Amino acid sequence: MKTLVMKTLDARMNLDLDFARFDRVRALSADADSLTLLDQRALPGSVSYLRMHASMEVAEAIRNLTVRGAPAIGIAGAYGAWLAALEVSGAAWREPLQASLALLREARPTAINLAWAIDQQSQLVRAADSLEQARSDLRALADRLLRDDLAANHRMGLLGAACIEAGSGVLTHCNTGSLATAGFGTALGVIRAAFAQGRLSQIYASETRPWLQGARLTAWELLQDEIPASLVADGAGGLLFSQGKAQWLIVGADRICANGDSANKIGTLSHACAARTFGAKVMVVAPWSTVDLACPTGAEIHIEERSGDELTRYAGTQVSAHGVKAFNPVFDVTPGHLIDLIVTERGVLKPPFAQTLAALA
Amino acid sequence: MKTLVMKTLDARMNLDLDFARFDRVRALSADADSLTLLDQRALPGSVSYLRMHASMEVAEAIRNLTVRGAPAIGIAGAYGAWLAALEVSGAAWREPLQASLALLREARPTAINLAWAIDQQSQLVRAADSLEQARSDLRALADRLLRDDLAANHRMGLLGAACIEAGSGVLTHCNTGSLATAGFGTALGVIRAAFAQGRLSQIYASETRPWLQGARLTAWELLQDEIPASLVADGAGGLLFSQGKAQWLIVGADRICANGDSANKIGTLSHACAARTFGAKVMVVAPWSTVDLACPTGAEIHIEERSGDELTRYAGTQVSAHGVKAFNPVFDVTPGHLIDLIVTERGVLKPPFAQTLAALA
Repeated sequence: MKTLVMKTLDARMNLDLDFARFDRVRALSADADSLTLLDQRALPGSVSYLRMHASMEVAEAIRNLTVRGAPAIGIAGAYGAWLAALEVSGAAWREPLQASLALLREARPTAINLAWAIDQQSQLVRAADSLEQARSDLRALADRLLRDDLAANHRMGLLGAACIEAGSGVLTHCNTGSLATAGFGTALGVIRAAFAQGRLSQIYASETRPWLQGARLTAWELLQDEIPASLVADGAGGLLFSQGKAQWLIVGADRICANGDSANKIGTLSHACAARTFGAKVMVVAPWSTVDLACPTGAEIHIEERSGDELTRYAGTQVSAHGVKAFNPVFDVTPGHLIDLIVTERGVLKPPFAQTLAALA
Repeated sequence: MKTLVMKTLDARMNLDLDFARFDRVRALSADADSLTLLDQRALPGSVSYLRMHASMEVAEAIRNLTVRGAPAIGIAGAYGAWLAALEVSGAAWREPLQASLALLREARPTAINLAWAIDQQSQLVRAADSLEQARSDLRALADRLLRDDLAANHRMGLLGAACIEAGSGVLTHCNTGSLATAGFGTALGVIRAAFAQGRLSQIYASETRPWLQGARLTAWELLQDEIPASLVADGAGGLLFSQGKAQWLIVGADRICANGDSANKIGTLSHACAARTFGAKVMVVAPWSTVDLACPTGAEIHIEERSGDELTRYAGTQVSAHGVKAFNPVFDVTPGHLIDLIVTERGVLKPPFAQTLAALA
């Protein structure tokens, strides 16, 4: 129904897009003395919110994947730092507060956004004249990170959607939506915006083994917003692109190198190869903080490998025979030459990315 | 251990390859009055064999996936026809026997091999002078189909293995092994032979959603034969080929068109796109009965779609939210231009397949 309504919108009305209408899920929110996280471990089976008053509850929630997605983790950490400031008192408040921040920072050492957020909070702690000021500054920064991330996602959504021809089918991978960010999402934000503008004929989300973020999270998130989408097997990219069911692959990124090589969840590269083979286009959507110009090419990116149990088991059920070995790299690198567009809040970049990325730095 | 031993074998000793050493699993076997099937529904959790004396037990076993894989289904049906001949008696034996054959033929209407095998048995029933002769002829044909399939697989194994450079890594998809055939397998037979000859540095098997034949069956089968292999996510093909971990994609086929376009389990095409993107090669291995020269291109192949429940659930557990839609095509078509070699028992074919396939017809 919504597709029909929104199709009457004109592209010039982009800036008036009613974002909230298609973006009802929030991974995190704060009130006067607590941070509330949507427990993503329980999704989609149950929707439960965990209210946290203690900074170490937040650290544990980051560690145990209650909250996930690099931007969301960074923001959760920033609020955790603010909660830590509420926990200290007395004259010697600064040292125990910095110790709490250090513990928060280590909750997930590979999430660059977490270190980035905590380091900014730590700087505020050093600079504050009083505990009262520190409390106020830390809360203000956490709120700003939340607002800035949402605003960046809205902007990327509109920039990316404007590149998508009306009537296009799109495939996305993993979860890059409101659950992974302050809201709206990165790649999924582009899909939200394009859907709201009536540009999309069909949305496909791949399961994303081994963690099934597509099946568990993306499919659920789109269902909440009444955005029609179809779950597909991770191996279905070739069929979708070869049959003309999808004209775009739209994905996020964990790191974008100076030449455009982009690391993302395992399976992204196979989708990109299939898209390129059949003339579909590849769009990478990520905030500018993901761009690492110090990293010349994808060859420099270390690909994390995790336990093979994630592949041989699912939800406590042994799927493969005991003794079966598994190779479980978590990310892959899509070479810049397979990417058509990189969308950041600073703008839409076309190849050659070595030049266009450097120009926006 | 075996890799080291077999590496001393010379390629000239191919024909002396000890097939049995690397091929211990059998999906089916017959004795004087029964057919025994390995219950593939229970794999890999439990290894149980079901001994059947009645033809309708065999029909049900084909229907309920106790036995699967097109060649194995055809052979099981042929033995089922023989069991049906043991069940009839008296002067009017021919009509009830043909009725049983008709029921067997319908057990899985889409498996071309089943109809092909039953039609041959039905012809023998018509031609037989006596019930005794029919019983003897039907058993003899079933035994011959079993022997011929195994021999064809051994031949394809050697032909395909000879094309693989020493030190290669290979990726396979779905299950094309002893479990799907009379033994040894088609694509997995090539991998078995190449492993036995010490040509392989690494074997990767992808999970093969939604039915997980790779995780459940291929991984188990290779474990029984002590052939080291690593399970990977269906989306890992791009990483394997881009990092040079695999130089070959080796897969089976459900139908090969006159131009080389090949239908196979969903996910094959994405693997092939990834292989081609990074210069790895694609080998399709299938018996000549799979070649359908009456089908000009893959565009003529109807792609079966099955229930979305197979994707929203994982190994019996609900994964996606209730209400999530899924698009679940079971096969995809890899265009002939992405295939480097087609291996059949009649020989190894190179492009242009329109010519090389026609030449072997």
